[in-house]
This record gives sequence, structure tokens and C-alpha cells, in this order.
Amino acid sequence: MSQPVSQFISSLAKEFRENQITQSGEEFDLLSKDPAVNAIQPAAFVFPESTEQVQALVKTAALFGVKLWVYSTGKNWGYLNTGGSQGAVVVLLNRMNKIIHVDDDLAYAIIEPGVTYADLSRFLAEKNHPLWTDSPGGPPSGSVIGNALDRGVGVTKYGDHFAHLCGYEVVLADGALLQTGVASEGGMKGAAHLYKWGVGPYIEGLFSQSNFGIVTRAAIWLMRKPEDYAIFSLNIKDDETLARGMDEVRELMLSGIVHETGRFSNDVAILTLLTQAINEDGLSPSKAIDREQLSRLKRKYHVPGWTCSFAVYGPKRMVRASVQEAKSRLRRLAPGVRVSVYSRKWAYVLRRFFTAAGRVRSPSLLKLIDYCCRKWFDTSLALGKLFPGLIDIHEGKPVETVVRRGYFRHKKARPEKDIHVGRDDVGVLWSVPVLPFKGDEVVAFSKECELLFEKFNFDFYTTTMIFNARSVCPLMVILYDRLDHEEGKRAERLYSAILDLSHKRGYQHFRAGINGWKNLYQSCPELKKTNQKIKAALDPLGILAPGRYGID
Amino acid sequence: MSQPVSQFISSLAKEFRENQITQSGEEFDLLSKDPAVNAIQPAAFVFPESTEQVQALVKTAALFGVKLWVYSTGKNWGYLNTGGSQGAVVVLLNRMNKIIHVDDDLAYAIIEPGVTYADLSRFLAEKNHPLWTDSPGGPPSGSVIGNALDRGVGVTKYGDHFAHLCGYEVVLADGALLQTGVASEGGMKGAAHLYKWGVGPYIEGLFSQSNFGIVTRAAIWLMRKPEDYAIFSLNIKDDETLARGMDEVRELMLSGIVHETGRFSNDVAILTLLTQAINEDGLSPSKAIDREQLSRLKRKYHVPGWTCSFAVYGPKRMVRASVQEAKSRLRRLAPGVRVSVYSRKWAYVLRRFFTAAGRVRSPSLLKLIDYCCRKWFDTSLALGKLFPGLIDIHEGKPVETVVRRGYFRHKKARPEKDIHVGRDDVGVLWSVPVLPFKGDEVVAFSKECELLFEKFNFDFYTTTMIFNARSVCPLMVILYDRLDHEEGKRAERLYSAILDLSHKRGYQHFRAGINGWKNLYQSCPELKKTNQKIKAALDPLGILAPGRYGID
Repeated sequence: MSQPVSQFISSLAKEFRENQITQSGEEFDLLSKDPAVNAIQPAAFVFPESTEQVQALVKTAALFGVKLWVYSTGKNWGYLNTGGSQGAVVVLLNRMNKIIHVDDDLAYAIIEPGVTYADLSRFLAEKNHPLWTDSPGGPPSGSVIGNALDRGVGVTKYGDHFAHLCGYEVVLADGALLQTGVASEGGMKGAAHLYKWGVGPYIEGLFSQSNFGIVTRAAIWLMRKPEDYAIFSLNIKDDETLARGMDEVRELMLSGIVHETGRFSNDVAILTLLTQAINEDGLSPSKAIDREQLSRLKRKYHVPGWTCSFAVYGPKRMVRASVQEAKSRLRRLAPGVRVSVYSRKWAYVLRRFFTAAGRVRSPSLLKLIDYCCRKWFDTSLALGKLFPGLIDIHEGKPVETVVRRGYFRHKKARPEKDIHVGRDDVGVLWSVPVLPFKGDEVVAFSKECELLFEKFNFDFYTTTMIFNARSVCPLMVILYDRLDHEEGKRAERLYSAILDLSHKRGYQHFRAGINGWKNLYQSCPELKKTNQKIKAALDPLGILAPGRYGID
Repeated sequence: MSQPVSQFISSLAKEFRENQITQSGEEFDLLSKDPAVNAIQPAAFVFPESTEQVQALVKTAALFGVKLWVYSTGKNWGYLNTGGSQGAVVVLLNRMNKIIHVDDDLAYAIIEPGVTYADLSRFLAEKNHPLWTDSPGGPPSGSVIGNALDRGVGVTKYGDHFAHLCGYEVVLADGALLQTGVASEGGMKGAAHLYKWGVGPYIEGLFSQSNFGIVTRAAIWLMRKPEDYAIFSLNIKDDETLARGMDEVRELMLSGIVHETGRFSNDVAILTLLTQAINEDGLSPSKAIDREQLSRLKRKYHVPGWTCSFAVYGPKRMVRASVQEAKSRLRRLAPGVRVSVYSRKWAYVLRRFFTAAGRVRSPSLLKLIDYCCRKWFDTSLALGKLFPGLIDIHEGKPVETVVRRGYFRHKKARPEKDIHVGRDDVGVLWSVPVLPFKGDEVVAFSKECELLFEKFNFDFYTTTMIFNARSVCPLMVILYDRLDHEEGKRAERLYSAILDLSHKRGYQHFRAGINGWKNLYQSCPELKKTNQKIKAALDPLGILAPGRYGID
């Protein structure tokens, strides 16, 4: 350990308890495992327990020239959740986990960064608040504030998490405490948490995907628990129909029929939920899934070319009208698209059925159920068993289902619960370009990317997330073996190739991990320069995460 | 004129034509008239015609130490639309008025800052685009980009104008040109105009209500022209019912029944549309309207204590469901609240009827129509004649109706059209605190403010604008005689008193004119400090609007 860091740690000892700092041992090793390529092992982890301790941390870091990489709960898997510069100290805010205030009338909560989706969701349910969170699909142990600041997305009207984070308390690099609005009595009064833009320049955005300050408290807007909902599930045959389907869904959103977001997943993405490359499905551990294998597995599990899901929420009458209107429009897409709609009641029945089916062990009974599923519902038992997870996520409950997919190429069977891609050495990189919500354009670009995945020998696993009625993100997941150096390098090269191709086509990525930062601004150098100027103004000593999002 | 300014102007002469600069004469005098108290007469007006000329302007200003105050079309009436510092040059971008691109599928337009609401609205209608603008209620000659950057609000789902402005081209103080995202081929490709947050820190917010740069191009998201709509109009008896009505409307929004915004206007606000303090209604020109006069006028024009309006848009089926659901909930408010709902067809009939009635000159016929209005529709002819304007604004058409209200205390009859509060020496200040959307709280605070209006002898004219399902702004309008120095000073004192009271209660204002800038951050000094640091980084010479929003 370098001298400045050890001096920094000694200096902290006055204000921090021993169990607030770790520099070695089991916990240190676990926390140091990062699913992203090129993560740098930090010198220490520190766990502040209050805003005052965060202020003390930055002031002490300034004294010794130590660099701090701050995470809310450290579950930024696949982007970077450890160190991004040599000899850095990682600060985890997971112990600052108070739910400070929940307002039922105005539908929001004031929380600290250590509050996870699981915490908040459980709290609201247990205390019987008429409110739901929006689930990001990420790990339930992920931070609500952290996800919003990194601009994570979910599936409801509140799916743009950053858009619904409002009124921050921020520790600046000099230790000063910034409130982004007039906040009386800790924000219990006034509208600092209720109107996003404040007055004067809107600066909250500066603390999102950056290294300009540390958000230690904020409000998250919550969804009114709806009287009813309906989940749409579209089975889409091929790329041509996909393009038309995308345009039709966009128009549902633009016309005010659907106010929520949703997703389009390819066959591989669905298969990652159903199987693993190590099981009886006979996939090669060293070779990406090929077309023949894909066709075979699609038949076996009854997986369509593309699957789309979204939901509508509201009073029964409104949901009924949305469903009728949407169905009558989506009908035009037949026969290439099959539309299923599950009302809340129907979802409840199916959830019970497939949960029960999940407990059946008798092979002949399983075969019979699978037969019935295919015959009556045009699905398979394996697909049906995913249904409870789909309902949960649309009910705002955080689920591990999505994160489990990361284990598709894992050499051992994935855990049933307590998923932890860090601990299990799962390697993952996310490639996330933003495209206009135009079917043809998304399909054409996705095909170009698919060729790159083939070239670099990785499974083409993609889910196009709807950001809003005008833009989508074909989120492409690069799964690799973190313990295999060559595979990691290859993953990195594929990531860079997609980034370059995106920029060439005029598409920026909406989020980036350590591997994206270098070239992120290659098409917009003035943006980088402006960010650097702001960095120099707010953190002249460069204490906070130097290089994060290309800003140092 | 000071030496630097004259040198600056001479230096410009190489690049600018003579008619691009004015330092005296009729046009200069007209442009110099500012409805805000304490505006400072500028040394000159300059009219660049391209981004390159804007870049030349800031570079030349830097050479000579000249301060530039930049406005899009200069219709920021009541906040400040001329100079805010001594010897400043005002830059008007009204000649940069190209509509660069309109995309029907993705529902947006790329425009320059000189494009007005009237321009854009007319263009869309004439070219038969299936798109509507959202109307701000401000002057039709106001800039779409300017209004959005100042965070103006309208009445539809697109009512938060800043939230729907996306992908900027910005001239920085050093003349550099910033694109806030990857923008290929002038933004015709990619998603820079379709996804708001970009990548890395979200910095577009820095160019809103600030002096950090000059936006020379941006995209505005437009509303899909709906199949149907319905306008709700609520007549509310008194303050107690108002509080309950506000809570009920908030719940309509939180539950996903109404996705649009709306307004609550008090009796005085409605009367400013119907009469003027100089006409036969016998109001004193030197004394604010008193309770007795108010009761008399309310009876005469059949004006309720409070009026609320909002609309829902979408396919017929969706609009019908919204109307049924909303009506069944609002019914609980009876008898204190009377709810009227006008379908698109019904609105069309009423528009024709009241437009025709507006042309009737026979007193006995007018009396008969008025009698029928009261008997059958619980309204008056005078109120009914406002209906076409209400429809227009809800159809996204910019109207002069709202701005005409500014003439309520004007000594001469207000013009029928071509409203121009600057030219006509109308004085106006807007006081705009943001409050939680809780009926009791809004009513209590409004009452406190009403006492201040009484104390300073001004008419209490207020319209509570709904910002979102969680916050509202009781917009209070201080109308004064711009040629009466004492009245101006009194208006300024009232403005300051409300600002102070707001901060004391924990409410920040959402926008401020020159009279608010000094004390805007009295409750959040660290925010001011942070803004100053960013200013120093982006505009170290302080060329752009020094002091705007308290930042110098």
C-alpha cells in the first residue's frame, strides 16, 4: 500500500471505528471482485455511516491526495464497482440506509443511498403504504439512489429512474454540503423533493454518471399502487415483424394508450433464463451458440424469435380501455405477432399455477403439463415458469431473475438464490447504445452488432429497452469468464468494436463502464472539454473517481 | 455610450450588416421598454443570423470586455427582456428562425431559437403534420426554445417545456460550439434529440435559467395530434372546497387517469379577462379591487370563487374512460364544485356559438343570450366568450388571451390584437413559488400572500399552475403602471415580501426576474456558490449576462 493511503487510513482511525475500514481479509477479497474487465484492485474499503463522515472522508482524502471511488451499495456490476484508478479507496455507502420519510399523499420517499430496492419495496409493503417502487431488473440488493444516478431503467411509468429522483443532498469534493433547493427541516417541508428543476441552472444532473460530488440523500418518486393492471406479452416471429412491432408499440406510447416502458428480448436473451451452456443442452463451453443449436433450443423451449413485454396500470376502467385500444391496433401485426394480455386476476391464477408447477418432480406429470402448455397456451412449461418473475417485476418487486441470466456461461450451476456475480467470478459487460425508436433502424443496427458478436465468438444476447416514446436502447450483454484472461480481452475488444460502430452510426451509449470511458467522447470532444472544466471547478484536486466517465 | 461598447460595435461592423445592429431610433426605443421593474437600458441591440455570428459576437465581446444579454425573441416580459447590467448589449436571436426538421414518426422538431409558438404551430398545421405544440399561454410571438430554457409551462402532457427540449447546440462564452450528444449530420441521425440525459453528467440543465452559454439549436418534442380530447372545467365555490378539489385532481394524476397538467384560477384572475379597471365597472384606478367590488363583479359576470381547467387527450375510447372515471371521482366534491366536461364535438359547437355571439351587437339579443347562458349553462355570456380561447390553448394553439390580462390596470382600453405589454408600458412582475400539491397548504399560503397584496394595494390575481402530480405553483401576477415610479417601487416591495415569505415557509420560486436574483439563494447559499464556480469555469471573463439568476 502506498504511503498516502496508509496515512489516510491512520488519520481516519480517529473518526471511524475499526469495522468501518477493511484492507484485507475475506470481506475485502469479496468486495474486490469485479465483473468488469480492467477493474483495478482498491487499497481499502471504507463504510461511512453519516453525511458528516462522508464530509470527513473527502477532507481527509484531500489532505493526503488519496482518490475516492464512491458507490452506494457497490452493485454496479458490469460497469465498475471497485477501483478505477491505482491505489484508490472505495467508499461504500451501504450503511447509510435510512428511509427518512414516506409521503402517501404525494407519493415519494426521502432515502439514503444505502437503501436497496429490496429494502424500500419491503418497507412499503410491510407498512401498507399505497405505493410501489419501480423495479430495475438489476439485483434487489442494488441501491435505489445509485441506480437512479447511473440512470438505470425499469418497466413502469417511473422506469426512467433518474427522471424521478429529486432534491439532493450532496457532499462536494471540498466537504461542503449542497442542497439542490430550499429544503426546510431536512426536506420535510417545501417542494425541493417535488419539483425537479429548482431555480436557476438545473444542476442535479451534474451528480449523475459523474465524479462531481457524492449524493447522500434524495427523494424518489413512487408509483400509486394501481387498482388494476394488464401485462402484454408479444411473441414475434422474425426481424421483419419485429420492426413493424416496434413501430406499433411506439405509436401506442405516442398516442397516450401506453404510458409505461417495456422491452423486446431476442431468443438468446430468453434462453439465458432457461438454460446454461454447461447443462444437457449440449452447448460448447468454448464456442458461442450457433444457428443450428439456437433453432434446436428454440424448438425445445418453444421460444419465439423475439418477445416483447410491457404493462398498463390504473383504475379498472382505464386499463380495460387501454387493453381494448392496444389489442385492436396490435391485431394488424398478425400472423407474425401473437399478442397475449394478462389481467391482474389472470396473472394471479397463472402465478399460482406455475409456482405450483415449479414444485412438481414427477417427470411424466411435468411432460403432461408441458404438453398442455403448448397445446392450449402456445407456450412451454419452462417459459411458463418464468411468468411469476415477470409479474413480480411489473408489480415493482425487485427480482433476481434477470441477474441470474449472467450465469449463462458460468462453469457451475447457477445458485437458486443469493445471486452474486462478483463472488462467483461471472464476467459481464453491458453495451448500451441509444437509437431512435424506429423498427427498421433498430433491426438493421442489431444485425450489424450480431455479426460482431459472431466474429468475437460471444452469444448475441440483446434486450431492446424502451426509454421513452422516441428512443430505445438495444442492451447487449457480453458474458465472459472472468477467470479466463484471453476471454476477458476478447470481451473488451468486442465492447470497443460496438462502441466504435455506434459512434460511426451516430449513436451515443447511455451509460458506460470503465472500458467505455476512454472513447466515450470521440464524436463530441467539446462535451468532454466542458465536463473537464466543470470537474476542475468542483473538484480541483481530483479526489473523486478520476477518469470516471472520461472526466479527470 | 462607453468606449468598449463603441469599439465592440465598430469591430462588429465587418461581419454584421448595418440592419443587424441598432443603437437608437424607434426600434431601439420599443425594444428598450421592459415591463419589469429595475431593467437597465442597454447600449445596443444586435441581431445575429447564424451560429457563426453568435460565435463571433462572444469572441468580440471578450476582446472588449462587453457584457451580452441574450434573448431568443425578447418576449420574456415581466422577468426581464432587456439589460440587466450597465452598458450591456442585448443580443436577440429572433432572426435565427429556421424550422430545420420535423419528424412525424418520432414526433419532434429541430428548431432555432427565433422560432415562435405562432411559427411552429402554423407550420405544423399548414404542412399537415400529425403533431401539435403545447401552448404556454404566453405571447404567441414568444420563442419555443426560449420558453423551454426558462422553464415555462403549458397545459398538456408536454406542459413542462424544459422536460421536452432535448439535444442542444450551444455557443460557449469562449466561442466554442458544444453539442450535448453525438449528433451526426446536424442531428438528423442518431438519438441526441430523442433521449434527454445523454451520457456522463447531464449538463443540458446548465443552459436553462442561467448565463453559462447560448443555445442556438435544439429539438422540441411534440404531441401526437389526438383522435379526441375532453376539456374539464370545474367551478369551485370557496377556499375549503378548493383545497379538497386540489387533492382530488392530484389523485387523478397520481392514479394515471389524467396525464396532463392544468390550472386553478381565482376570481380576480378570471375578471382580468373580462373587464378593465378603467371601464364602466367602477373600479378605482388608484386602489386595488376590494371585497365589495369583487362580490359585485362576480355576480355581474357570474364568476365563481375558483375555476379549474384541464384536459385529457387520446383515442376516443381512452378519453371516454378518463372522463367517466374522473367524473365519478369528482362527483364527491358536490355541491361545492360543479364539473363540466366538453368533448371535442361539444367544444366545436360551443366555439362556433360563442364566436358568433361575440359578433352580436343588439343589446336586447345580448341580454337574451346572457339570460339563456345563466339559466341553462350556469355561466354568463361574458364567460362563455372566453371559451374559444380556452379550446385553442388546449388544442396547443398559441393565444393572446392570457397576455391581454396584463392590461387589467392599463389606463387605456387594451388592444384587440397585437398585444405588446412592452410597447404599451404595462408593468408586470410574476411571483412564482413552488408548493407541494396539497390543497390545505396551497390555500393557507395563498391567503398569507393575499394579505400582502392587500397591504401593498395590488389586486390579488393568482393562478395555481399544476407542475406535476406532486407540485404546483401559485403564480401571482403583480400588475402596475410602468410609468408610475411610486407604483413600480411598491410592486417591487410586494415582490420581495412574497419571496421572503416563501423562503421562510420553505418554498423556492421556480423562476425569477431581475428583482428576485439578489435574494434567490438566501436559504441555500451553497447552491449559489456552486453556480458561481461553474460560471467561473465556463465564462471566466463574465461576458454572458452577469448577475442573471444571481450568478456573476
